[in-house]
Formats: sequence, C-alpha cells, structure tokens
Amino acid sequence: MEIFDYVSEHGHEQVVFCYDRASGLRAIIAIHDTTLGPGLGGCRMWPYKNEDEAILDVLRLSEGMTYKNSVMGLNLGGGKAVIIGDPRRDKSEQMFRAFGRFVATLGGRYITAEDVGTSSADMAIVRYETRYVAGLPDSSGDPSPATAFGVFRGMKACAKRVFGEESLKGRTVAIQGMGHVGYHLARHLHDDGAHLVVSDIFEDRAARAVAEFGATRVDPDDIYGVECDIFAPCALGAVVNDDTVDRFKCRIIAGAANNQLAKPVHGDRLTERGILYAPDFVINGGGVINVADEFEPGGYSRNRAYARVAQIYDKVTRVFEISDRDGIPTYKAAQVMAEERMSRLSGLRRIYVG
Amino acid sequence: MEIFDYVSEHGHEQVVFCYDRASGLRAIIAIHDTTLGPGLGGCRMWPYKNEDEAILDVLRLSEGMTYKNSVMGLNLGGGKAVIIGDPRRDKSEQMFRAFGRFVATLGGRYITAEDVGTSSADMAIVRYETRYVAGLPDSSGDPSPATAFGVFRGMKACAKRVFGEESLKGRTVAIQGMGHVGYHLARHLHDDGAHLVVSDIFEDRAARAVAEFGATRVDPDDIYGVECDIFAPCALGAVVNDDTVDRFKCRIIAGAANNQLAKPVHGDRLTERGILYAPDFVINGGGVINVADEFEPGGYSRNRAYARVAQIYDKVTRVFEISDRDGIPTYKAAQVMAEERMSRLSGLRRIYVG
Repeated sequence: MEIFDYVSEHGHEQVVFCYDRASGLRAIIAIHDTTLGPGLGGCRMWPYKNEDEAILDVLRLSEGMTYKNSVMGLNLGGGKAVIIGDPRRDKSEQMFRAFGRFVATLGGRYITAEDVGTSSADMAIVRYETRYVAGLPDSSGDPSPATAFGVFRGMKACAKRVFGEESLKGRTVAIQGMGHVGYHLARHLHDDGAHLVVSDIFEDRAARAVAEFGATRVDPDDIYGVECDIFAPCALGAVVNDDTVDRFKCRIIAGAANNQLAKPVHGDRLTERGILYAPDFVINGGGVINVADEFEPGGYSRNRAYARVAQIYDKVTRVFEISDRDGIPTYKAAQVMAEERMSRLSGLRRIYVG
Repeated sequence: MEIFDYVSEHGHEQVVFCYDRASGLRAIIAIHDTTLGPGLGGCRMWPYKNEDEAILDVLRLSEGMTYKNSVMGLNLGGGKAVIIGDPRRDKSEQMFRAFGRFVATLGGRYITAEDVGTSSADMAIVRYETRYVAGLPDSSGDPSPATAFGVFRGMKACAKRVFGEESLKGRTVAIQGMGHVGYHLARHLHDDGAHLVVSDIFEDRAARAVAEFGATRVDPDDIYGVECDIFAPCALGAVVNDDTVDRFKCRIIAGAANNQLAKPVHGDRLTERGILYAPDFVINGGGVINVADEFEPGGYSRNRAYARVAQIYDKVTRVFEISDRDGIPTYKAAQVMAEERMSRLSGLRRIYVG
C-alpha cells in the first residue's frame, strides 16, 4: 500500500518503522494527531500475515485513539503501536527494551501501554528505557474494571434516554463475551438489579456468570437474537454487520468492544430500526481515562480516575444531544463531538514536540 | 515493497513517514545506524514517481551516510531525508517549517542539511523549528569547496600509491562534470600543475574551465575513453558500469560523485584491469566533515574543518592498507574500514536517544 495515500486521507502525522537487529523487533508506531497532546495508545503484538496488514491496523487504531481521547476530554492525541510477532513465542526482554528505546526516541510524542498481546509486565520492561509508558503493574494496573465501569455508566445514560430512568433494575442485558471487561460489567449490572443473558466461546467463563450472577447462558451464535433491553458487545469488533443488524431484538446497543459497526451503513440501519447505539469509542473510554491518570501531577489516583470514568454518563448524553441538534445518527455525532473539541484547540499547536 | 524486509537486511533502525496536512509535506526520514552518534545526512527534494522509489532512495542514501561518517572519523551515524515533491514548484516556508518540526520530534537522532533540491536558505527555515540542522547560510555554508578539496587530497594519496609521488604536476586528469565540486576540484588540480580534460552537459560550464584553467573540453559521451592518469567522476552515479568499465584508459578513478560503481562486480573488474579505485564515500567526505564541524563546541571553524578534510589523504591511504592486508578490492576495504570502527564502538550504545 502507499502509506502517504492513506495518511493524507486520514490525517496521520507520523508513521515510524522501528527495527532492532539484536532482538529482531519489528514495530510500527503511528501518531495520528497531536492537536490535544502526545498520542496515547496501546502496543499490540500480533502475528500479522504481512506488513500491509500491520500498517493498516496501526493506522486505523491510532486514528480511533484520537477520537476516543478527544471525546474523553483527555489532553492526549491519538497514537498506537504494533509489534509484528507471535506473543506466545517471540517475546523477549531484549525486544521490549528495544521497543522502549524507540518510544524514547519520540521524546514523548507517543505514550505506549499494554494492549492485545502485551501485558503490564511487558510495559514494566519498556519502563526501563522510557518514561513514556502507562499501565504499569504498580500504578493504574489492569484497565478492564475501569472500562467496564465506564460502559455501565454509559448504559445508564442510554436507559435514561430510552426508558426515562437510568436504573437498570429489572432490565434484561445480553452480554456477548465474558472476558475481563464483560465479567466486571456483569457484576455492576447484577448489583443494579438487571437480568443477564451471557455468551462466551469459552464455556467456563459463561458458567461463572451463571453461578455468580444468576445469568442465563446462551450459545455464542444465539446471543444476537436474544430478546432484551440492551445488547452489550464485549468481545469481537464488527458485530453489527450485514448478517446481524436485523436480528437484534433490543432497544439499545451499548458495550465495550472496539469498532462494533462493520460499516457506517450499519449504524444508519440501527437508527432506522429504532435501536439506540452508544458509540463504542465513547462508551469504552474508561480504560484510557484510567491509564491516562498516571500522567497527572502526583501520579495515579484511583478515586480521581473513577470519578472521571463515571462522567462517561455525561459524554454519552452529550452524544445524544449532538445527534438531536444535527439530526444525525449517534455514531456520526460522536465523531462530531471529537472533532469539535479538536478544532477549538487546533490553533494551540501543530505537530506536538515532546 | 516490504520495508522490514529491506531494513532487516541492511540494518536500518528507523524509517519515519511524516505528513503535514497544512503544507502538503510528504517526507521520509531514514535513520540507518546510530552506533557512532546521531544520524547526519542531507534532505533531498525530488519528484519521485511513486512512494517505493522514495523509500528505496532514502534507505540507500542513509546507509551510505553511515559508512561515510564512520570512515571520516565523525561521531555521527547515518541518516537521510527525502521530501516527495518538485523543488521548482512545491516548496513553501510552511513546508520546511513542518519538516523542521518533524526533525525536532526525533530529538537529535537525525540531523538534516541541504542536499539535491534543497538549499541553505531552506535549511535556514528548518532552523526556526529545530537546532538539528547543519549547513546554514552564515555557518559552514556551501559544502562543495570542502568536498572538492577532499577529493583533491584523496587523489594525491592515489598518485602516491600508483606513481610513487603525490604531486599531480604534469598528470592528466579527466573530470566528468563541471558543477560546483568539479569546478573547485579543477582549480586545485590546475594550481598543482595538472593538465585537465573536462566535460559537462552544460557547455558554458565546460567553457569556463577551458578559459580559466586551459582545460581541454570533450563531449560528455567521450569522457570515459580519454587517455589520462586519473578519471574523476563528479556528476552522475553509476558511471562505472557494464558499458564503461572496459573503456577507461586511466590508472586511477577518483572523484566526487556518489555511488560510482553500478554494482560491486564493476569494482572487481577495475581491480582486474589494474585501475586503482578510490572508494567514493571515502574520497568525497569533505562536505560532511565541513558541515559536521558546526556541531563542535564553539561552533564552526573553517581552519579546523579544512585541516580535517586534508586528512582524507590518510583515510584513502588507510583504505589501501586494508586492501593489501586483506587482499580485497578497495571498495570492499572501505566497507571494512567503516565497519571496523563501528564494531569497536558498538557496545557503547544501541539506538541512540538524543
């Protein structure tokens, strides 16, 4: 692919290929936009089939971080890193040291964190080489509980709009995916009095929710058609697609997964069907709010971080206001919300230098 | 092209794609090796036909700078930048400002300078955004006279080896290209008492050498077959190629052009034919020595810089010693010389952070 063709369409500032002979590290760091501050986004490790697949992934993900960080009110831009390799086989201390040193070369324009295929233990190694890393073991820690809490708060904003009251007591919520985030979300919902229907490709995960929260378990393929108030995608991306979009029997889609809409047209279809969609990068921003708190003066504060995560209620509500104001679907309103803040601040700096 | 495939073969550390929407800047910065220090190399502006052509150029040129800077004894690694665009049409202050800001983002890992398609006036704009730029108007200035002086000194080392004495008095030197470097070289040779045969695709340039130095002018196509003591390529690269390698009627090839050998095999053929080849990146290092002097404590000193350029005599002599020691052609010996210094220092740092 021609990198500049993609980049000039999507506005990325910088794409950095990093190679370290000694460790075999092959990493790409993409910095999408630093209008609001240094680009923050995780480092994914994945056995990409080829270089183009890795480039496209890091370009797409870094752009998403720009919008997420903007909407969350963070003073952070969008960035992301990918390491080409198999996380079960190719990791070494030498590799994450080298990666950290490359992050250091950007002088703070990019801040890394754990992501798919990397762990907070890996980030602890990165920390030996650069201070521009978040999500360390002894600091904000696992972001999943914060993400789940943010999704829970966002769901309440959805319930307020659709049902007139934010309590989820007596509501039925179908959760796709009982991983870290899904589990913590289920706990919040259970505590609030909701009925749960859950699915997971790993049976033991679903079974745990049945045991702990009295959830009803369904097969992974059946979760889309469950009659419920809220459908919560907490696993794969692109679950709102040609095959599923007309199967949903819910009033609200609100969950933690990234890139839930396969294409924009599926967001339009949800609107036609009268299903309220909580845009993913708004409702799932709890994790990044939590990890970004490490960069506050004085360091991470769980209380401050969770108080901010709770405001995802207001962020989601604001998306609905923009949707009403401009007469556009919510997924477009979220984009507008992100861009409005950035355009207000775009005169402040261009090409942030750390 | 797959960037990591090339990079893992040639050992580049970092390849940075830089895009600025406001100015339309599309630049690629390649940092080949920072074992010896930050990567120094010029910024070329060229209307590349496609992205791959630009990538290949910047990768190739940045690697060449590593070897050149190593052999010159500079505490600098290899880097290079290319801007995709037509220097006659696409330049703007905004563009070089943005470029300078991207250089700044690397925090001193890459130091830029003028090159083909850019000028010291462009670098003065870059200087508004970063101090990591050399070759400014009021400092070391045009590098061509220093390059020419270095080539002249290297030629003397060649003459010493082939003829037993370093004076070029009475020798015939055929110079291909009467641009800045060719002209200054001709002056040194004329002052030393050499006879000159010159060619240039611009007639007025060749005519000037005829008038000032009593040179003999030949058509550009005929320069390869001129009977002479020394052939000095000072224009195009790859002039020692399948078509020309058996046409040379000289004892020495020593000139300022980059990448004079089309392929390594042409260097081997010169050895077979008993023609001494002064490796290009050794003999043409005067310009980079001169510009690098700007980074000495206290700033640029012409006397110090030229004293160092004069030592190209010793560098070229050292290449011959290694060639004899290892029984290898001079072009290989230059590579060995560059790598020997780097391997001695490779434990010092890996992935220099500015």
